[in-house]
Amino acid sequence: MTTFAEIAPQLEHQAIEVPSWAYGNSGTRFKVFGTPGTPRSVEEKIADAAAVHRFTGLAPRVALHIPWDLVDDFGALRSHAGELGVELGTINSNTFQDDDYKFGGLTHHDRRIRQKAIDHHLQCIEIMGQTGSRDLKIWLADGSNYPGQADILGRQERLADSLAAIHAQLSDEQRLILEYKFFEPAFYHTDVPDWGTALTHVQALGENAKVCLDTGHHAPGTNIEFIVAQLLRAGKLGSFDFNSRFYADDDLIVGAADPFQLFRILFEVIRGGGYAPESEVAFMLDQCHNVEKKIPGQIRSVLNVQEMTARALLVDRAALAEAQEAGDVLTAHEIFMDAFYTDVRPDLAAWRESRGLPADPMRAYEASGHQEQIEAERVGGAQVGWGA
Amino acid sequence: MTTFAEIAPQLEHQAIEVPSWAYGNSGTRFKVFGTPGTPRSVEEKIADAAAVHRFTGLAPRVALHIPWDLVDDFGALRSHAGELGVELGTINSNTFQDDDYKFGGLTHHDRRIRQKAIDHHLQCIEIMGQTGSRDLKIWLADGSNYPGQADILGRQERLADSLAAIHAQLSDEQRLILEYKFFEPAFYHTDVPDWGTALTHVQALGENAKVCLDTGHHAPGTNIEFIVAQLLRAGKLGSFDFNSRFYADDDLIVGAADPFQLFRILFEVIRGGGYAPESEVAFMLDQCHNVEKKIPGQIRSVLNVQEMTARALLVDRAALAEAQEAGDVLTAHEIFMDAFYTDVRPDLAAWRESRGLPADPMRAYEASGHQEQIEAERVGGAQVGWGA
Amino acid sequence: MTTFAEIAPQLEHQAIEVPSWAYGNSGTRFKVFGTPGTPRSVEEKIADAAAVHRFTGLAPRVALHIPWDLVDDFGALRSHAGELGVELGTINSNTFQDDDYKFGGLTHHDRRIRQKAIDHHLQCIEIMGQTGSRDLKIWLADGSNYPGQADILGRQERLADSLAAIHAQLSDEQRLILEYKFFEPAFYHTDVPDWGTALTHVQALGENAKVCLDTGHHAPGTNIEFIVAQLLRAGKLGSFDFNSRFYADDDLIVGAADPFQLFRILFEVIRGGGYAPESEVAFMLDQCHNVEKKIPGQIRSVLNVQEMTARALLVDRAALAEAQEAGDVLTAHEIFMDAFYTDVRPDLAAWRESRGLPADPMRAYEASGHQEQIEAERVGGAQVGWGA
Amino acid sequence: MTTFAEIAPQLEHQAIEVPSWAYGNSGTRFKVFGTPGTPRSVEEKIADAAAVHRFTGLAPRVALHIPWDLVDDFGALRSHAGELGVELGTINSNTFQDDDYKFGGLTHHDRRIRQKAIDHHLQCIEIMGQTGSRDLKIWLADGSNYPGQADILGRQERLADSLAAIHAQLSDEQRLILEYKFFEPAFYHTDVPDWGTALTHVQALGENAKVCLDTGHHAPGTNIEFIVAQLLRAGKLGSFDFNSRFYADDDLIVGAADPFQLFRILFEVIRGGGYAPESEVAFMLDQCHNVEKKIPGQIRSVLNVQEMTARALLVDRAALAEAQEAGDVLTAHEIFMDAFYTDVRPDLAAWRESRGLPADPMRAYEASGHQEQIEAERVGGAQVGWGA
Repeated sequence: MTTFAEIAPQLEHQAIEVPSWAYGNSGTRFKVFGTPGTPRSVEEKIADAAAVHRFTGLAPRVALHIPWDLVDDFGALRSHAGELGVELGTINSNTFQDDDYKFGGLTHHDRRIRQKAIDHHLQCIEIMGQTGSRDLKIWLADGSNYPGQADILGRQERLADSLAAIHAQLSDEQRLILEYKFFEPAFYHTDVPDWGTALTHVQALGENAKVCLDTGHHAPGTNIEFIVAQLLRAGKLGSFDFNSRFYADDDLIVGAADPFQLFRILFEVIRGGGYAPESEVAFMLDQCHNVEKKIPGQIRSVLNVQEMTARALLVDRAALAEAQEAGDVLTAHEIFMDAFYTDVRPDLAAWRESRGLPADPMRAYEASGHQEQIEAERVGGAQVGWGA
Repeated sequence: MTTFAEIAPQLEHQAIEVPSWAYGNSGTRFKVFGTPGTPRSVEEKIADAAAVHRFTGLAPRVALHIPWDLVDDFGALRSHAGELGVELGTINSNTFQDDDYKFGGLTHHDRRIRQKAIDHHLQCIEIMGQTGSRDLKIWLADGSNYPGQADILGRQERLADSLAAIHAQLSDEQRLILEYKFFEPAFYHTDVPDWGTALTHVQALGENAKVCLDTGHHAPGTNIEFIVAQLLRAGKLGSFDFNSRFYADDDLIVGAADPFQLFRILFEVIRGGGYAPESEVAFMLDQCHNVEKKIPGQIRSVLNVQEMTARALLVDRAALAEAQEAGDVLTAHEIFMDAFYTDVRPDLAAWRESRGLPADPMRAYEASGHQEQIEAERVGGAQVGWGA
Repeated sequence: MTTFAEIAPQLEHQAIEVPSWAYGNSGTRFKVFGTPGTPRSVEEKIADAAAVHRFTGLAPRVALHIPWDLVDDFGALRSHAGELGVELGTINSNTFQDDDYKFGGLTHHDRRIRQKAIDHHLQCIEIMGQTGSRDLKIWLADGSNYPGQADILGRQERLADSLAAIHAQLSDEQRLILEYKFFEPAFYHTDVPDWGTALTHVQALGENAKVCLDTGHHAPGTNIEFIVAQLLRAGKLGSFDFNSRFYADDDLIVGAADPFQLFRILFEVIRGGGYAPESEVAFMLDQCHNVEKKIPGQIRSVLNVQEMTARALLVDRAALAEAQEAGDVLTAHEIFMDAFYTDVRPDLAAWRESRGLPADPMRAYEASGHQEQIEAERVGGAQVGWGA
Repeated sequence: MTTFAEIAPQLEHQAIEVPSWAYGNSGTRFKVFGTPGTPRSVEEKIADAAAVHRFTGLAPRVALHIPWDLVDDFGALRSHAGELGVELGTINSNTFQDDDYKFGGLTHHDRRIRQKAIDHHLQCIEIMGQTGSRDLKIWLADGSNYPGQADILGRQERLADSLAAIHAQLSDEQRLILEYKFFEPAFYHTDVPDWGTALTHVQALGENAKVCLDTGHHAPGTNIEFIVAQLLRAGKLGSFDFNSRFYADDDLIVGAADPFQLFRILFEVIRGGGYAPESEVAFMLDQCHNVEKKIPGQIRSVLNVQEMTARALLVDRAALAEAQEAGDVLTAHEIFMDAFYTDVRPDLAAWRESRGLPADPMRAYEASGHQEQIEAERVGGAQVGWGA
């Protein structure tokens, strides 16, 4: 059995990017509930992200969503973040909230709308220059609701052209990350519904184009860790959007719905080299805190990833390989489960303290009075959400 | 083989209730697109519903949603509908858009909020008196997002109490219709997730409490026509919310996603007595026209139900029974499919004309200029949607 | 936080019934692999079950499957079991392997076949008298593969009649347990596909008719613990068939696919009174060890149930209720997860030793030489499997 | 609207390969029912396939499965087929019924077993030389049942090596067709579970390596026609295994479970060039007639494909494109549905008669006495099934 002391050094380089939009309000088509203390500006969102990092040491970067996080001066925003101890991270584009995109953006048959969607991405690339971001992440809402509504094949061709036009504007140090999603908001066909489609497109683009795996974007029953292994094998796993789900793209706290699945995913990440210090696989959250408090919701999330990474690192891979090769199913499974069932929380608490962090970030946040403070301060103004 | 002439008389009594909210804007959590010509008031919604009835002869009643359709004078609204040739139908309650209901309504542990939710239903019953509606339909958004968040069992007890308090206020001629839904907006547990739960509650209430089967509210792979048979057998099928889906509660046009499923459902309705003239099973639509035009979307929908009802009536049940009892799988299946593959559209067109209706309601609506007229007239004001 | 010492007394009465057929060979339609040491007789199956009990103290009863376990002298079999330290338990009927049942058994339209299926159950009841079994468990393979093949509604009526005829022969101390299953071996409709159908039937039968919940028999995404709560609320949860699954009725080791789900199920069992000493809810396994060794596979399984029961008992329910009522989603969830993440294995090992059991039953079995012994002894003869 | 006369010429080249194993017995893990008239030899299976062709003109080739169809003299078998009016088609390998393959074949960590699996494929290639077959189809049962049991990533590497070794032995005119499957018989991970994995492997092999799409091998809710479009776009759609399903890999008659899905699939095949006379996409059946008669089951199946191909050809693609580009969702959908709802059966009957075929092959088969004849003749001997 591997010990915590042996794996602790590997926890040091863990960094989980948090999304600016997790601090704003979100909900379902039925209702978006507001919450006291919700940010009214991009700056306040970044302050919240910085709080998560302060209490956990795990979240040094904040992903932005354009146009939700559009500001006049990204240089100033970058400084603001820096002063709070975090960096600006991935730039996420948005081609689903403008009326022009009702029937698609990068896939639209109308050249004007397609060019508008491309231009939006070029604007995102410009912003990346100002924020110092490495990654442009593209999630497409494109699709159709009714059989016959759209020309599936023609849209693929246009998508390939649009992506090539965007990719051509990236520097070699920048990356294009293409995200796939099974369904929603389109209910019949989605233009990038699965990892096979995403892989096909990024392979056509080149070395610095990769796939984003959102853990909530698969068909029921899909073995996600298998996809992790495949994308790592192909050198094309660019990033994770972590969250969890029971049904569809529920966007719950990562690890909340099926902790053992998170363990298996992280095990394959490690197994395939995606967690090595030199790995360029980005760990991100993409969640919606519809009914729970947002800052502690994010703290809980990054802790869940950290705890489960520790468990996955604890797997005794030499013993595991031996049992696998012997065809000893029960022993192999038991070695695997043994790591999962190990309670790493006390060791992690001590390890955090040794690094000047609170042993229990959830309790520390509660005790800090930070929540009460923002709830008192953030009165008036419009709470931010998913508005364009 | 049964002929169209033989089944035509059974088409005469078909009536499909349309939902007022189908004429307003709807969408996903990502975006609600507006459409030219969308109503700005309850009265305009009812006018749109009346147009659907005028072109099809199939939609004599409009379901209302409270508070979306709250007006000062329901008597006047009833007269308005009557003048347009339609009646007001089912009253749908709403306990999911008030901030108080964040953690539930009829199931809430807080007596005050629970009573507020009960009182809302009592208000709906009062409205029913004014509108002349028979049915109070209750769909609950109640549930939780995280394991541990809620006391599943305790909520069932409170739900039973709340429903009993509401039911007690109904007259014998009125009905309480309880709708179940697999998931959404709650993502871990839903308080009335399946027909078994709904049946358990309405059985406890009494004779005039029934179940609503929404065709989009089941787990993947569920055999819906089997549930139809079960609810009819128990005397508890109160109404349908028709729509169709590929993934979740997509709320697409009924029959658009899986026409053969609609055929099977209607066959079991007929088989179980739910389509007989004396049957009290209500046929309703519950759909969202996110990307298509709304009035023709509703026309298409009621036509789909009519066409598929005709096909289901065409099944040669005597021959079918014979093949079934002989264990002749292929012949039984072929008799069933033969009706499904019969193109009833020409016969239906002639039948419509014989009754003074347009042969092709879709083309007739297009040619009528009605759409252009409402698009021109309905300028200014706020388009209605799902707002509370 | 509840401590292990506080909950340990509640572990004492735990008993998990093991199925005789788990010790025989099983597989898929593609292949049944044989395994060295597999029993050649009912007696050897019971000996294997007794070994599981000897190493764990958890498995005092063996369920039988008729006709797989048919013997001339059940009294002798009962004595054989008793000498080995176990009892004979639930009697499972089988109406799916005789050619007559190709189109159904208890639901068949042909009175002769229906009566044959009823008579088979009467034979099972006779056996129960000889074995001292309390429960007759009925799982029906009845259903159809093609739309139109069968009369869904008519089959329900015949099923109700058949069940009544069987139930009438039970004594008041005996129970009829009706199991539901989503699909397989029938691929279009199944006559008892869900808990709602099973509940409807057992409610019609009477007090001593209950439902069996097999954890692998649901649609994708089904919230099983919710069903547990519902059946307990209705007083109709008769027994569990424990196993686990990723896709369909995979019949894997309980807790192997989704340990957190098992935790949630056991929590609701406890919450709803199903684990109380006086509870009549039977815990059983129903699994297939297709690729792993069978005796240690069963040992692993009963340990999984025991470990997860301990974790579920550890939930601090007072604190949980407080957080739930405060609407504190994150704290409630954390209290819940805290118990799940607690590593109960060391405490359980000590507790086992204090009761004269091996601290680690898996290692103890390995070290015992038992497996080598049966592999050496059980040569020649036909290994048992699912043969009729 | 396109007319039948316009599309009739395109029906002439349709050919659907039938599987030899469809004529043998099949079933589930619970039971394989025998049927009167079932073949006792490879020769009788081919005679049954020839009967299907004789009555439909649609099934000129029979796929073989090795070792189920292993004979001493494949030249003689080829002559036998030729005399009956059919050809031998695709060779299907089998690495799932030998005890050595319990933990995998082409992916096995043990070099000996891996080589055995490779050698089996080399034997299949030899047979292809004798039968004149173009395609080697590989479906792998390889996978694992428990997390930790297998090294997912290592198995991918070994699979790539094994496939390369097999591919190297093919001539340029021969093709390697790799089939993917979501799950079963493995229940945790499957080594080729999705089209992305299959595509990755065949792309590494070369021009004459393609993917087989079995319509029953996807996760619930998967948009199969989208995959058709993708594989055609990549030039990698090698063949179809047609069947239908409600739940898992049910292997029901193609078009029986969701006829509209079959329509959509065939539309994308046509749209993407996969149905053109020069297309190398092979149409095959892969079904199990568990409860229905086998020869008429196959006749029904090829007719379903033919009828639905006719409907898909009827789509007025010019009008459809116009409506799509106008963003007219309802009109586009209606044009699509119009073709689906057109009853092509009378036109097809006339067309068949004009070509010397029975107007109604199902009735013609019934009337022919063929079924009675084989039931009378095929007495004694062992009925064939899935036995190795």
